Amino acid sequence: MKEFFKVTELARVLETVSVFPGVGVEDIPLVEAAGRILAENVVADSNLPEFPRSTMDGYAVRATSTFGATEGNPAYLTVKGAVAMGQSPKFAIAPGEACRMPTGGELPKGADSVVMIEHIEALDDTTIEVYRSVAPGQHVLEIGEDFQQQETILSGGQKLRPQETGLLAAFGRETVRVYKTPVIGIISTGDEVVSIDATPAPGQIRDINSYTLSGQVLKAGGIPVSYGIVRDDYAALSEKCRQALDCSDMVLLSGGSSVGTRDFTIEVISDLPDSSILAHGISISPGKPTILARTQNKAVWGLPGHVVSAMIVFKMVVQPFIEHIAGVTAGSSQLSKISARLNRNVSSAQGRTDFIRVRLIRKNGELRADPVLGKSGLINTMVKADGLIEIDINTEGLDEGSVVEVIPF
Amino acid sequence: MKEFFKVTELARVLETVSVFPGVGVEDIPLVEAAGRILAENVVADSNLPEFPRSTMDGYAVRATSTFGATEGNPAYLTVKGAVAMGQSPKFAIAPGEACRMPTGGELPKGADSVVMIEHIEALDDTTIEVYRSVAPGQHVLEIGEDFQQQETILSGGQKLRPQETGLLAAFGRETVRVYKTPVIGIISTGDEVVSIDATPAPGQIRDINSYTLSGQVLKAGGIPVSYGIVRDDYAALSEKCRQALDCSDMVLLSGGSSVGTRDFTIEVISDLPDSSILAHGISISPGKPTILARTQNKAVWGLPGHVVSAMIVFKMVVQPFIEHIAGVTAGSSQLSKISARLNRNVSSAQGRTDFIRVRLIRKNGELRADPVLGKSGLINTMVKADGLIEIDINTEGLDEGSVVEVIPF
Repeated sequence: MKEFFKVTELARVLETVSVFPGVGVEDIPLVEAAGRILAENVVADSNLPEFPRSTMDGYAVRATSTFGATEGNPAYLTVKGAVAMGQSPKFAIAPGEACRMPTGGELPKGADSVVMIEHIEALDDTTIEVYRSVAPGQHVLEIGEDFQQQETILSGGQKLRPQETGLLAAFGRETVRVYKTPVIGIISTGDEVVSIDATPAPGQIRDINSYTLSGQVLKAGGIPVSYGIVRDDYAALSEKCRQALDCSDMVLLSGGSSVGTRDFTIEVISDLPDSSILAHGISISPGKPTILARTQNKAVWGLPGHVVSAMIVFKMVVQPFIEHIAGVTAGSSQLSKISARLNRNVSSAQGRTDFIRVRLIRKNGELRADPVLGKSGLINTMVKADGLIEIDINTEGLDEGSVVEVIPF
Repeated sequence: MKEFFKVTELARVLETVSVFPGVGVEDIPLVEAAGRILAENVVADSNLPEFPRSTMDGYAVRATSTFGATEGNPAYLTVKGAVAMGQSPKFAIAPGEACRMPTGGELPKGADSVVMIEHIEALDDTTIEVYRSVAPGQHVLEIGEDFQQQETILSGGQKLRPQETGLLAAFGRETVRVYKTPVIGIISTGDEVVSIDATPAPGQIRDINSYTLSGQVLKAGGIPVSYGIVRDDYAALSEKCRQALDCSDMVLLSGGSSVGTRDFTIEVISDLPDSSILAHGISISPGKPTILARTQNKAVWGLPGHVVSAMIVFKMVVQPFIEHIAGVTAGSSQLSKISARLNRNVSSAQGRTDFIRVRLIRKNGELRADPVLGKSGLINTMVKADGLIEIDINTEGLDEGSVVEVIPF
């Protein structure tokens, strides 16, 4: 049996992520920042809230004025006035006094708590009966209770979810520094591949990988730019690679997985200016023929032509590199895995990392991972599947009933 | 204790989703379809693949010609030629014959399988030795093996992931019919709320909800349109609601959760043309004061002003309505829940549905859901949290160690 290339272990390949520089930063309006990766540490320039706020409708009081109050033995308080929303009260509350308080309003000086409207009765315009005691601080957001001035509220590398953009709004951050969105060039190769607007002649197929990979780049937080289809021709592919490299932060080639064209893809990538091959073959299945090069400090990938292999290699190998150059700090993806129980035995070869497509199904109220078997040229297996499970290099398969972590896609 | 409004059970509120019509459909280019919701059933207009394709580099043969072949007793086959990528072979393979076959190439007539290049030795230009037998169909994608002509390949209501756009590309679908993206109008209300470019005077706070809700709308597959901040004024709010309704498929008001302004928000919503209140108060915590109206066949929501309450109501109540009008068929969201073990006891009141913010942490290799406690005015609790757990209306709390399903946000 011939050995076509010396494969590199997946973990070794993933370590090389650190040789690639990030894409740089830009300042953008907060309204456009949802989903972007923060590129600065943000420090609170004030307390949040800046004044004590009521969390209920009711009356602001000194808590001591209500101590011991019950329905049978209410406290009688003198109403000093009413706080209006958005205005700072001009009066103070003394023992035995209260003032009408809307949710979100500022507590007057002297008041330290709020009695809910449900627990008082107004006797007349200036007197209320209070039926329950409150503790100091009750139904109040204290100054700085959400965030204290000088506190670091967000750190670079975080993805800005809706709550983080809201937090930046609270501190009046009209613009925010984020990592640029990496631009990923995508090239399909192969004499058999035609554009989707063409009717394939016998022996030809339409270009699928440009669409699947573009969608994956978008989901991974990149901007896909398709450079179309290149025939299996050294000069044409080399020229297209240079074009894509000039305008992209990373380049994905797909196709060329047959022995002849594979040799020729590696030759084209090797011959690009300032290019070195980091991996030529990875010990994963599917996806073994994958090529990774560092070209002008950018990652250039030669992905398999089979649609399933290309998608799986993208998800498990390429995506961490995109996240790295996009400034994402590690760790978050771990939380998106879904635990499920394997629905049948799955075999795997030792010495390589296997990725198994699975469908998630509910069975007796329990989540099951049901392997979707099928050749890596069959896109229907990806359409049926909800995610992947990984069988590591030292494991020889998994038994039915094992708990597995499903990586959704 | 006063009862301010009669609350509706969450399940009852969610049932009303069906009264709202969908947003309609549009035809868009496939390149823009990633992440959109398919609005047609797609039928295969041909087989995929349309010709038998090799999945390996090797030699196409009749399997019978290799039966019994071993290293010690190889089969000798006559090489008939080579198949070129993208071209239909003009010759046929008879018993005892073989032809050079690239991965992805079309098998010639008469061939039914492929011997891998690793399992042959070329003796000269016209003869190979085969060391292993292959079965009929081995290393071949048969005609229609991925999808058969006339088969329904995708159904309306599905979200188009990368693999689904790839599948549509395979069938040459340059345009695809999808549901329109719903436009969601967002209005912040409250005399205390100022724009994020303003420095809040004492008693004022910046508008957070416009940012958190816009981000949530985006994540839910809608287009957020912010109508800014309206003071607590009947005429101004009514006018702004009409504006937003004219240009949106749904309207979200937030704020106005204090008793006076709440009454006035419900009055404004009730008085809009062709408006009926479906819920005024929902038995959930946080989020009880939520209002839902059906106005000109569109959902108009009155969300609480507290940032946490508004976000949780959006996620658990509003989002299913957005997905419904956007054409999403039910079921998929179930799969995004993450099982974890509760890290401590959580109490809850019977008779209402409680949503608890949790952080996901790994402890002894196991995923734990760690409750993030704190008032619903504190955005830091949402920044710390990874998701929510739901404690249903008939449960009085959950014990440490219980397995819970975390809804990520």
